[in-house]
Amino acid sequence: MSKIAFIGLGHMGLPMARNLLKAGHDLKVYDLVQAAVDELAAEGAKPARDAREAVNGAQVVITMLPASRHVEGLLLGDGGLLESIATGSLLLECSTIAPESARKVHAAAKARGIELLDAPVSGGTAGAAAGTLTFMVGGEAGALEKARPIFQSMGKNIFHAGPDGAGQVAKVCNNQLLAVQMIGTAESMALGVANGLDPAILAEIMRQSSGGNWVLERYNPWPGVMPNAPASKEYDGGFMAELMAKDLGLAQETAQSSLSSTPMGALALQIYRLLLKQGKGKKDFSVVQKLFVE
Amino acid sequence: MSKIAFIGLGHMGLPMARNLLKAGHDLKVYDLVQAAVDELAAEGAKPARDAREAVNGAQVVITMLPASRHVEGLLLGDGGLLESIATGSLLLECSTIAPESARKVHAAAKARGIELLDAPVSGGTAGAAAGTLTFMVGGEAGALEKARPIFQSMGKNIFHAGPDGAGQVAKVCNNQLLAVQMIGTAESMALGVANGLDPAILAEIMRQSSGGNWVLERYNPWPGVMPNAPASKEYDGGFMAELMAKDLGLAQETAQSSLSSTPMGALALQIYRLLLKQGKGKKDFSVVQKLFVE
Amino acid sequence: MSKIAFIGLGHMGLPMARNLLKAGHDLKVYDLVQAAVDELAAEGAKPARDAREAVNGAQVVITMLPASRHVEGLLLGDGGLLESIATGSLLLECSTIAPESARKVHAAAKARGIELLDAPVSGGTAGAAAGTLTFMVGGEAGALEKARPIFQSMGKNIFHAGPDGAGQVAKVCNNQLLAVQMIGTAESMALGVANGLDPAILAEIMRQSSGGNWVLERYNPWPGVMPNAPASKEYDGGFMAELMAKDLGLAQETAQSSLSSTPMGALALQIYRLLLKQGKGKKDFSVVQKLFVE
Amino acid sequence: MSKIAFIGLGHMGLPMARNLLKAGHDLKVYDLVQAAVDELAAEGAKPARDAREAVNGAQVVITMLPASRHVEGLLLGDGGLLESIATGSLLLECSTIAPESARKVHAAAKARGIELLDAPVSGGTAGAAAGTLTFMVGGEAGALEKARPIFQSMGKNIFHAGPDGAGQVAKVCNNQLLAVQMIGTAESMALGVANGLDPAILAEIMRQSSGGNWVLERYNPWPGVMPNAPASKEYDGGFMAELMAKDLGLAQETAQSSLSSTPMGALALQIYRLLLKQGKGKKDFSVVQKLFVE
Repeated sequence: MSKIAFIGLGHMGLPMARNLLKAGHDLKVYDLVQAAVDELAAEGAKPARDAREAVNGAQVVITMLPASRHVEGLLLGDGGLLESIATGSLLLECSTIAPESARKVHAAAKARGIELLDAPVSGGTAGAAAGTLTFMVGGEAGALEKARPIFQSMGKNIFHAGPDGAGQVAKVCNNQLLAVQMIGTAESMALGVANGLDPAILAEIMRQSSGGNWVLERYNPWPGVMPNAPASKEYDGGFMAELMAKDLGLAQETAQSSLSSTPMGALALQIYRLLLKQGKGKKDFSVVQKLFVE
Repeated sequence: MSKIAFIGLGHMGLPMARNLLKAGHDLKVYDLVQAAVDELAAEGAKPARDAREAVNGAQVVITMLPASRHVEGLLLGDGGLLESIATGSLLLECSTIAPESARKVHAAAKARGIELLDAPVSGGTAGAAAGTLTFMVGGEAGALEKARPIFQSMGKNIFHAGPDGAGQVAKVCNNQLLAVQMIGTAESMALGVANGLDPAILAEIMRQSSGGNWVLERYNPWPGVMPNAPASKEYDGGFMAELMAKDLGLAQETAQSSLSSTPMGALALQIYRLLLKQGKGKKDFSVVQKLFVE
Repeated sequence: MSKIAFIGLGHMGLPMARNLLKAGHDLKVYDLVQAAVDELAAEGAKPARDAREAVNGAQVVITMLPASRHVEGLLLGDGGLLESIATGSLLLECSTIAPESARKVHAAAKARGIELLDAPVSGGTAGAAAGTLTFMVGGEAGALEKARPIFQSMGKNIFHAGPDGAGQVAKVCNNQLLAVQMIGTAESMALGVANGLDPAILAEIMRQSSGGNWVLERYNPWPGVMPNAPASKEYDGGFMAELMAKDLGLAQETAQSSLSSTPMGALALQIYRLLLKQGKGKKDFSVVQKLFVE
Repeated sequence: MSKIAFIGLGHMGLPMARNLLKAGHDLKVYDLVQAAVDELAAEGAKPARDAREAVNGAQVVITMLPASRHVEGLLLGDGGLLESIATGSLLLECSTIAPESARKVHAAAKARGIELLDAPVSGGTAGAAAGTLTFMVGGEAGALEKARPIFQSMGKNIFHAGPDGAGQVAKVCNNQLLAVQMIGTAESMALGVANGLDPAILAEIMRQSSGGNWVLERYNPWPGVMPNAPASKEYDGGFMAELMAKDLGLAQETAQSSLSSTPMGALALQIYRLLLKQGKGKKDFSVVQKLFVE
């Protein structure tokens, strides 16, 4: 079992850290929100008063933060946390951030002799709690082999996407495609229902045909088609529309740096921003269905 | 075994008729192209000199034509074929046409005492040859039960989509979603590769994650990722881009009649029309990948 | 002065007919709504009890109806109004309808020896009242010369767009471009204001620069920038969003028949349909601004 | 007359500097490309060997560089050029860069007691040569009054867009709208022509109607409609498609920071990126017309 420091105990980080604890690791935790630290301390984790104290003595450091600026702000620069992490240790940066930002952190970690993996996750808070997250990992294959048992305490599928930053690239590609499929599914459902079809029957036909996708398998946006989907619970829970807008924004930043053309992804971002304007940012991202129904 | 008339022996109709023949049905066939009639006659079908002769004495009539105007032109109006089809017989209209057009033909058939099903297919020429087509059927449940053994000689999944025209509605919804997913997949693949990912690895990650869809399962648009996909054969074979443009046009007509908003489907249509302008209409619809790669 | 029959006295038709009356023409009028007929009768027009009575004895017939199906329903087929219009007379079809529909009516009129012009207008109810409409005319140049004085009683700019149906094509192209510019202006205004600019200053800069367009000249969608624009009157009056959606639908039908790619126009249609779903169809089409503002 | 340092003598900067020279200013110039420096030296400017030498003794410094990174790289940081510019002098930063980047430079200049204006231009190389550029200026009104005579030596319209960065915001809003109008005009022209209209007639009708815009006034994208437009010269000269893609990218960055929804602008960017993939980046941005014509 490893000595692990876990920094960032939000909706995702807290259940991830808990799974490491259950797996028997020696865990030190830190978050700006003291309650989250206390909660894990009550379950056996060692509380740290700041990030520096958390990483002191750790063989593995895991960070799970909201956005690029938090990650860069924490790790880089004079007095940045990288200076306090021991040479030779493993840093698993699990936040979803810009690939460019990830590469910057990789370079800085290398300069300090720290093995870094960018390892954003998919699977949402439910996957974090159940320990069934998917990790998309960028960095050295050797580092991934060392980290694999740690990842396996928190997730099910661990993919090596490629070199430094590749985990982030895979994540933005996947989530862009997911958003496109969600909107495409929602508008096709609405089109069929407006023309007389039963939503459950249409959903089943498309699921088994060439329109089949993950949204139709697990996450139908039409209320009542899947009793456990957010759509059937007034679009509460799940993956918030504002987080999907964030990921689609990262996709556009990534497209900007390669001058890639992504018409569907760009339109998806604009549609999610319309939802945010309507105050639906905290609802599950399948709430886009509502745009298409009277 | 039934006495069946089959009208329309194109890329899809010919292999469908052949499967009926193999199943032991008593088949009379007609097409404007004599060679197609001759080909099936050599295999045991009875050739007809015109549509009227074909349907004479038939218990079941199957039509497989290119577009709404051909179907309406053949069946409706003074001297239309409906006048020559026996009352009480079954008419399986398998063309992909506008739902509104299908409903018009349904009404006319009803007035003549003919049981009509609109039953467009998906699965392409490969599915037609293998007898694994999907039928999306609109009309009376009783008529579908009578027709089921006939459909099963040609296909695998037979869905009852709903009342008159519902088969066509289900088909346009499904194919709209398919087109959106194809373009979304193609642009996400290009985005990932332009940012350093290996196409096969990215494809596999998305396939197993929330970006998963039928395109990633069966029909990857990136050359070389799937050896048997049209993308790996210079985009030859498969489902032609111009046919996808036709189906997306039907989706927009359907949306027009219900004032439905389908931003992704509308954009997909425009993108396929750009491909047609570039002379790529006869290529498989996954050729959209080329738009996004230098 | 001519003997004119005017059929269709809606928001546009009534003020147009009134201007003909003011110009001294001998006017017979008909509408399904008796109140509109009575209103013009009180001002000197001859009321007709049905369309047939209206055209009896007329040298010029003007029709101003909501959509293709009304125009075809009125004029074509057995017992259609064309049968009651005198050979050699002039028929000015001012409704905004599908070019294909206009061509059908042209052909039928020709067969009856009636000179038809398709002559849709732009300028809205304000232009209709002020007699400053724009007419976009399709048909024979000779017929247009005969009709010119009539058009001039109702409008200011009279364009000969080309042969049969060309008036309708010009209208849908113009209105598609107008919708694209309205949305483009609205989203650019919102972008600037969200980033700290004063809306009136931004509007003025763009108006005088390469972003300049008719919307910025006359019809700014941001409330308060132009005191007389619908935007400053809670988006009341003006040109209703649902009529713009209708015209954008005609543009897409026209694009369908030529397989033209119009990505901006297609997206504009989908955005207007979203507004209709939100119950804003009766508001002026500049209400699209609201989508982009919190 | 002022002592002016001009840094950045590219396609825009060189003719701008020349106009300052003609107006009688005492001009010192620098560029990485020696030939550009020599060319102006031959016309009376003082050549500088580096940027530091150029600004030495200057009352006014003008920079005209390709992108944000060049501006930040030149001016900011340890040893940045701001350290060599005299307190109390005026810095006119005319490059088109991200508003956020402009605000960063403003803050650094203020800390050094330098009055900075962000002042991007529109009007292209032709406007730069003719001295008819439009300046969109962000910063203090007092600084603008001091700078006005300098701007007037190079341009015609000088707008005060608002506080620090507002010039850049106005520019990206304007150019986003311009791109939307260009594409909207191009696709509407193609739609009309595909349906039988003469391009010159359609262009004139829309120009005088509610579809009217700057593109139709000055810059028609259909070859032959305007003899002097780039479209009539094989899309050479003018404003390169790749520069429009750059500006649309800045618009999207700006939208990202305010979470603004700009569906038309986002789609325009994707369409320009498709053109870049097709190798048309160096052509005038009206080359987008070609996408819509067979």
